[in-house]
Amino acid sequence: MLIAGVITEYNPFHNGHLYQLDTLRQTLRPDLIVSVMSGDFLQRGEPAVVSKWDRTRMALQAGIDLIIELPYIFSVGKADIFARGAVSVLDQLGVSHLIFGSEIGRTEPFFHTLSLIENNKERYNQALKEALREGMSYPNAHAAAYRLLSSSADGELVDLTQPNNSLGFHYIQAIHNRKSAMIPVTILRKETGHGDRTFDSEASIASARSIRSYLLGGGSLTNLQNKIPSFVYSSLNRKNEFHGFTDWETFFPFLKYRLLSSTAQQLSQIYEMEEGIEHRLLSYIAKADNFYNFISSVKTKRYTWARLQRLSVHVLTNTSKSDARLPAAAGEAPYLRLLGMNKKGQNYLAAIRKDLQVPLVAKIRKHRNPILDLDIRAAALYDFLSGGGHPAATRSETSHAPVRYDEEKGLFTGGID
Amino acid sequence: MLIAGVITEYNPFHNGHLYQLDTLRQTLRPDLIVSVMSGDFLQRGEPAVVSKWDRTRMALQAGIDLIIELPYIFSVGKADIFARGAVSVLDQLGVSHLIFGSEIGRTEPFFHTLSLIENNKERYNQALKEALREGMSYPNAHAAAYRLLSSSADGELVDLTQPNNSLGFHYIQAIHNRKSAMIPVTILRKETGHGDRTFDSEASIASARSIRSYLLGGGSLTNLQNKIPSFVYSSLNRKNEFHGFTDWETFFPFLKYRLLSSTAQQLSQIYEMEEGIEHRLLSYIAKADNFYNFISSVKTKRYTWARLQRLSVHVLTNTSKSDARLPAAAGEAPYLRLLGMNKKGQNYLAAIRKDLQVPLVAKIRKHRNPILDLDIRAAALYDFLSGGGHPAATRSETSHAPVRYDEEKGLFTGGID
Repeated sequence: MLIAGVITEYNPFHNGHLYQLDTLRQTLRPDLIVSVMSGDFLQRGEPAVVSKWDRTRMALQAGIDLIIELPYIFSVGKADIFARGAVSVLDQLGVSHLIFGSEIGRTEPFFHTLSLIENNKERYNQALKEALREGMSYPNAHAAAYRLLSSSADGELVDLTQPNNSLGFHYIQAIHNRKSAMIPVTILRKETGHGDRTFDSEASIASARSIRSYLLGGGSLTNLQNKIPSFVYSSLNRKNEFHGFTDWETFFPFLKYRLLSSTAQQLSQIYEMEEGIEHRLLSYIAKADNFYNFISSVKTKRYTWARLQRLSVHVLTNTSKSDARLPAAAGEAPYLRLLGMNKKGQNYLAAIRKDLQVPLVAKIRKHRNPILDLDIRAAALYDFLSGGGHPAATRSETSHAPVRYDEEKGLFTGGID
Repeated sequence: MLIAGVITEYNPFHNGHLYQLDTLRQTLRPDLIVSVMSGDFLQRGEPAVVSKWDRTRMALQAGIDLIIELPYIFSVGKADIFARGAVSVLDQLGVSHLIFGSEIGRTEPFFHTLSLIENNKERYNQALKEALREGMSYPNAHAAAYRLLSSSADGELVDLTQPNNSLGFHYIQAIHNRKSAMIPVTILRKETGHGDRTFDSEASIASARSIRSYLLGGGSLTNLQNKIPSFVYSSLNRKNEFHGFTDWETFFPFLKYRLLSSTAQQLSQIYEMEEGIEHRLLSYIAKADNFYNFISSVKTKRYTWARLQRLSVHVLTNTSKSDARLPAAAGEAPYLRLLGMNKKGQNYLAAIRKDLQVPLVAKIRKHRNPILDLDIRAAALYDFLSGGGHPAATRSETSHAPVRYDEEKGLFTGGID
């Protein structure tokens, strides 16, 4: 059985994602497609434009058979932590092939790169440490250490400064580290770079980031119709009428309140709060009138924008170092939180369920786990705060069933609206 | 020199307060009137309708010469803690006469009551303990213990179930406990009970509570013109145009956010969080759509509305048990925070300054004290949140000077608008 796995955020789902799924179906002819998807907070430290439930429905309509949530502690983590968590979920689900997009489009260079780094670990770590001591950010320090090794390498290497190459490398490293039999397959990304902020209005593929920027800037959804499938258009359109889309600015008053009401000592307990950065946050928050300006004022060469955003998410959700200790040590998801499935996905789950090494969480009410508690808290806060801070908007995530999708009738049940 | 002292909230200032000041001027002919006033959060656990700076200006226009802030930890405290803090401020300022309103209007019964309780401390405390064990609220338990003693008393006693009598008793007890030479003077309260929620539209005196209810319910300020001095009318009118008035509902989304993002263990560290009440707060917050409904659902016989409101204020301001330990032990204000003064007040301060036992805090920037830190935090949160959660509304309390009032010209300088 060929079980294809994809690691996604779908923030929001767009034609590039559709292209990736089409390509994977044509080339691999999988029996099943499984996705591990980030919840309401994403790897770059941003709240999703629409909730995980909306994005789950999009994924199901795009033909994914089974969607599992990547726990918060991994989904809002550095690239290596994110990759480790996501790969662990797919591996536990029995995924045979992990498919990911990359700028390079072939897997061999990834294996060369992995060997190079694994065989020169000491030199690599030494160079990394020095670069960090010089005040470089993590990604820049990694790049510098890698450049140093590259000069002595044979075989084609991956350009790790490209964002999708870099993530892909972390996936392959995670597969290697857990001695998994999963086969990585990469698909050349089409047309647009991952981080592009603007898009060509004629092109049928635009980056998720450019779509978000456009929407959050008040751009009309109509102008995106050629870049997103029609089911995504309908979903976003409905969301737009009720709540609008969510971004950091929506949540900023609550982040500001949290910072204004915390002591430096309390903030120092927050996950990823390091080197006294809490004092910088506290000294800039009083004057900051929006999130963008706040991060701009706090930012230094040492801290990337994404790192400060992730840190802000952890402050907002009150995620502490001790909350993160357990998953960091385990390095894998201790449960599989089911977000959505179609009939095929359901049959597959029924077949493998008895062999699963970790509990399958369909209804949260029946489960208790400190890592799951973080997911519940993050979801409750996202739902409450993205309802515009209106107290009535809080919905009870814990009592809801996963989304079920009947493809033939095009009908959904379960989830939260 | 006769220095009159009053303990005030002025939330907002009204004709009843004016009447009290007129009576005190006529009967005592004081050389100076000093007030210790609560900051932005009040004894019943509510945010003030307008900020302490607005209320300081009202007090100055009403003829008070010197206004000192009652530190947060006392101003949002049970009656005995509130009284102890307030009396300590007035005593340190050299106040010779403490004037307070009461339902009984004469001081002798207070002294009888004080003697009765002091002479039967053990019996009183025993009765109190038993009543609390039976599940009574603090005020009801005190009343029950007092009833028990009263039966055996000679001399007229005070009815301590009347709110102003009760506060007055705590003032007199605080004076007694610190062996202060201050002379308590009580003025009979006119026309309205302290806690009345509605008022007679014809009457010139209404309770602050009824005025607040009316304003916060959207009532027109114009209809209050016969109940408040014209300078209060102008001040409230101006506020109304810019921000509207502040109440718990304004702050509720932030309380809800704080509770949704806190663990029971973290909440148990909050000041006045006792007997596991944090679990009750957590189980009702998700469904609560406003503050009134939230407190209604949490309330039990054991917890008064005011106690739950104070607890909510401490949650909102993140005031911990360890924050409160110091002032509770000291039992007196460790500094005098100057909010406002006229020329006369300024001259008086200049004359006594060298004899003060605690620092006079005019500009906060020069002072550091853990109790003052709580005041600064409470003010920053009030200013930010009462600005409707708009990030731009945060003003820097620490950099501002006290309000100075030139009575002849009717001009203010300093403070925060």
